[in-house]
Amino acid sequence: MEFITLKYVTKKPKLKNPIFIEGLPGIGNVGKLAVEHLIDSIKATKFIELYSKDFPPQVFINPNGTVTLVNNEFYYWKAKKRNQRDLILLTGDYQALSSNGQYELAEKILDIAEEFNANEIFTLGGYGLGHEVKEPKVLCATTDGSLVKKMKKYGAIFRKNEPGGGIVGASGLLLGLGKLRGFKGTCFMGETSGYLVDPKSAKAVLNVLKKITNVEINLAALEKKAKEIEYIANQLREMEGVPKEKSEELKYIG
Amino acid sequence: MEFITLKYVTKKPKLKNPIFIEGLPGIGNVGKLAVEHLIDSIKATKFIELYSKDFPPQVFINPNGTVTLVNNEFYYWKAKKRNQRDLILLTGDYQALSSNGQYELAEKILDIAEEFNANEIFTLGGYGLGHEVKEPKVLCATTDGSLVKKMKKYGAIFRKNEPGGGIVGASGLLLGLGKLRGFKGTCFMGETSGYLVDPKSAKAVLNVLKKITNVEINLAALEKKAKEIEYIANQLREMEGVPKEKSEELKYIG
Amino acid sequence: MEFITLKYVTKKPKLKNPIFIEGLPGIGNVGKLAVEHLIDSIKATKFIELYSKDFPPQVFINPNGTVTLVNNEFYYWKAKKRNQRDLILLTGDYQALSSNGQYELAEKILDIAEEFNANEIFTLGGYGLGHEVKEPKVLCATTDGSLVKKMKKYGAIFRKNEPGGGIVGASGLLLGLGKLRGFKGTCFMGETSGYLVDPKSAKAVLNVLKKITNVEINLAALEKKAKEIEYIANQLREMEGVPKEKSEELKYIG
Amino acid sequence: MEFITLKYVTKKPKLKNPIFIEGLPGIGNVGKLAVEHLIDSIKATKFIELYSKDFPPQVFINPNGTVTLVNNEFYYWKAKKRNQRDLILLTGDYQALSSNGQYELAEKILDIAEEFNANEIFTLGGYGLGHEVKEPKVLCATTDGSLVKKMKKYGAIFRKNEPGGGIVGASGLLLGLGKLRGFKGTCFMGETSGYLVDPKSAKAVLNVLKKITNVEINLAALEKKAKEIEYIANQLREMEGVPKEKSEELKYIG
Repeated sequence: MEFITLKYVTKKPKLKNPIFIEGLPGIGNVGKLAVEHLIDSIKATKFIELYSKDFPPQVFINPNGTVTLVNNEFYYWKAKKRNQRDLILLTGDYQALSSNGQYELAEKILDIAEEFNANEIFTLGGYGLGHEVKEPKVLCATTDGSLVKKMKKYGAIFRKNEPGGGIVGASGLLLGLGKLRGFKGTCFMGETSGYLVDPKSAKAVLNVLKKITNVEINLAALEKKAKEIEYIANQLREMEGVPKEKSEELKYIG
Repeated sequence: MEFITLKYVTKKPKLKNPIFIEGLPGIGNVGKLAVEHLIDSIKATKFIELYSKDFPPQVFINPNGTVTLVNNEFYYWKAKKRNQRDLILLTGDYQALSSNGQYELAEKILDIAEEFNANEIFTLGGYGLGHEVKEPKVLCATTDGSLVKKMKKYGAIFRKNEPGGGIVGASGLLLGLGKLRGFKGTCFMGETSGYLVDPKSAKAVLNVLKKITNVEINLAALEKKAKEIEYIANQLREMEGVPKEKSEELKYIG
Repeated sequence: MEFITLKYVTKKPKLKNPIFIEGLPGIGNVGKLAVEHLIDSIKATKFIELYSKDFPPQVFINPNGTVTLVNNEFYYWKAKKRNQRDLILLTGDYQALSSNGQYELAEKILDIAEEFNANEIFTLGGYGLGHEVKEPKVLCATTDGSLVKKMKKYGAIFRKNEPGGGIVGASGLLLGLGKLRGFKGTCFMGETSGYLVDPKSAKAVLNVLKKITNVEINLAALEKKAKEIEYIANQLREMEGVPKEKSEELKYIG
Repeated sequence: MEFITLKYVTKKPKLKNPIFIEGLPGIGNVGKLAVEHLIDSIKATKFIELYSKDFPPQVFINPNGTVTLVNNEFYYWKAKKRNQRDLILLTGDYQALSSNGQYELAEKILDIAEEFNANEIFTLGGYGLGHEVKEPKVLCATTDGSLVKKMKKYGAIFRKNEPGGGIVGASGLLLGLGKLRGFKGTCFMGETSGYLVDPKSAKAVLNVLKKITNVEINLAALEKKAKEIEYIANQLREMEGVPKEKSEELKYIG
């Protein structure tokens, strides 16, 4: 096995001018939740499994007792209507562990995007605010100044100097390295407390993405998850003895 | 010396359709205890020493004052009866330190298994429960769904979603990477508190393995070790001032 | 992308016997502040962007919403007067994360210095004292014994055994590796508390560098920043309830 | 610069059947103190500087204000009398930072030993006991069983199962890797508290080495240093308010 290994699990699909969308684990798991939900909703097809020696040495156990080596996965979806475009979707169990591995992985992902002529990239993540968010907004950052104006039309916002620390990990790197290669890219960051997985924030991100891709996304499952998390958050607040309406800060969970 | 170096210490043995069994250090040292005990019991022959730059830079000192560089070791054993099969057994001082090293090592181990046509792999480890276990069960996870049913016949059990964190380290990786190469593999995980080395859990694992390999394993030495550890655990509990029958949690030792 | 990638953003400039000056992030950000201020003041031209897989996987967000991959940047400036020399200036977002990366990066930087025949190197940094400094002095260390005497004339000082821990990072390595290649080099270290970014210390360093390069440097911006930091330091002291004139130690901030 | 770079600072010496002696930084700095003292005492000549990207990115500042990149250094000494043998001596600022780097460095050091036909290796270090030692003994471990007996004649001792953790770092690795290459090697470990640099322990080690090499070693400087350290240790004990004769444990210092 190379440092990164690609395994095609279907025949290489023929895609026409696809949009590339990444959602890997990160703050509030916003990006991963959004892309996984999108994959389920549109019934996208897995075509590549990506393995790397810079992922943890770990297998997960499936419901039937079999193991699966941790990986990243590429899905594709073919446009059904005139106003839609083909999609490539990326999600996975982990981001690379080391800085060098992060760069290697982002380069490999861009190679695949290039191979399928996906010159427009969207990366999805969370923007951790450290306090509860009633109505999460979706911030954006882009490779081109002109894209900022365009994304505002779809409901994303832009606040100068936010996030102050920039964007760390695959969502940032795919844009940064992509820009050097001539890709057009946008990162959508759903506001989130950052303390719990945040389906509400993922939903906000998908609401923007829906307008760009013109695909129908059934948000019911995400809304259900969001309610479950809200319930857990309330339980935690009560355990802390903090009245529900006053609590602004939650304890970190994962 | 390469990143990984193999040193044959006997002539390359001729093995017929051998079973490969791994037991390296890990939770409760269950896997290592089990394989070491098996090696002693059946008088297996060491044939490969494996050295790696991803092991700690360390030598151990033998009883006669000589040093030995930390390593992993392969043993073989030839079937004596019709219902037995040749065995390759792997144990060692350490697992690789880095994630990358873990992958490299697992690949090299699979190379050796392939070279000797050992297409069936068993990896042994502990499943840390965080509390004392009176009668440790042996969980299993496999490369193939059909194997789960088979292993249940030998006394292993399977509980959905356990272990929740999957399997980390060589025991997981050999199965995960092995599956990609077409190996059939099973991981046996003996329940253990995870606080002390656990010969009782190792014994439970060997009781399952005995039925698969049809070798006779003298468990007396493991039982003696188990009693010693039980004595130490009781001492620790008393030092903590916790009455024996009430204590559920032990302090972490090693 | 290689481990280190150079991207020329202008035509390769023709420089005559240039002086090379490095100021990357470090203690009190003294070196980075000094070189950035020098670049602004003399309107130097960026000609190389340097990217490395040993920088964090991160982009920063520009005021217009576009992203920039973290990097180091080389600027040049052509002498305007007889008593001046061409300059190459290096600053950046980060130093390399790993020890190996630090060496790789320093070697690459020296390659560039060699390519442009810059055989005289100045590296700028802070010398953290752990207490407030009213009038920061500028210490020096050099590749040649004769240079120490020369630098004293320009206002730098030399105290035996200081800094006791030597010089860590790019400022030290460029001199250490440079010396092995035959470069002449000097490190200027502005005294600083090390608790806050320190424009006052950067100003002290530039006051020495001014005499060496014979360039005019408008220090107004640095002086303004110095006042802002002093204000913040006073606020912090008051928050701690420590009367202004008695406080010697500040809390660490960044 | 390669991962490891050798720089000959004299012509390659012609040595006859030399003994190789290593003393790098470690517990109580026993090995480094011993070899440095030996080098000074017999006026050995530096002939190789070894640089590595796995050393910290750091320069030290010499008394005259010049910098020196951190390194390891090889010295040689030619036998003056019939009962003496040529010596190669190794000391340095640091050991390699990473596990992989430790292996790489040990292999390179063995290459040099081989090149000069030094097939007998002595590695020097400390054996940290965690309490004060009035009369430090010198333990040994070897590549060959026959060597243990020989070393006892020179005043070294051997205690079964000590050190229980084996030998970590260059002193262990040179023996472990050396053994695989056919070197004869012995590690001498001076007992030490491990809390402070320990010239008394280094002296004990040199007293054994003196009998093996038949060189005269003036121990006055080490004895003076030992008194200084004893004074500091007493000061520390008093600061802790512990009466001198009762204190067994010192606080960790360096």
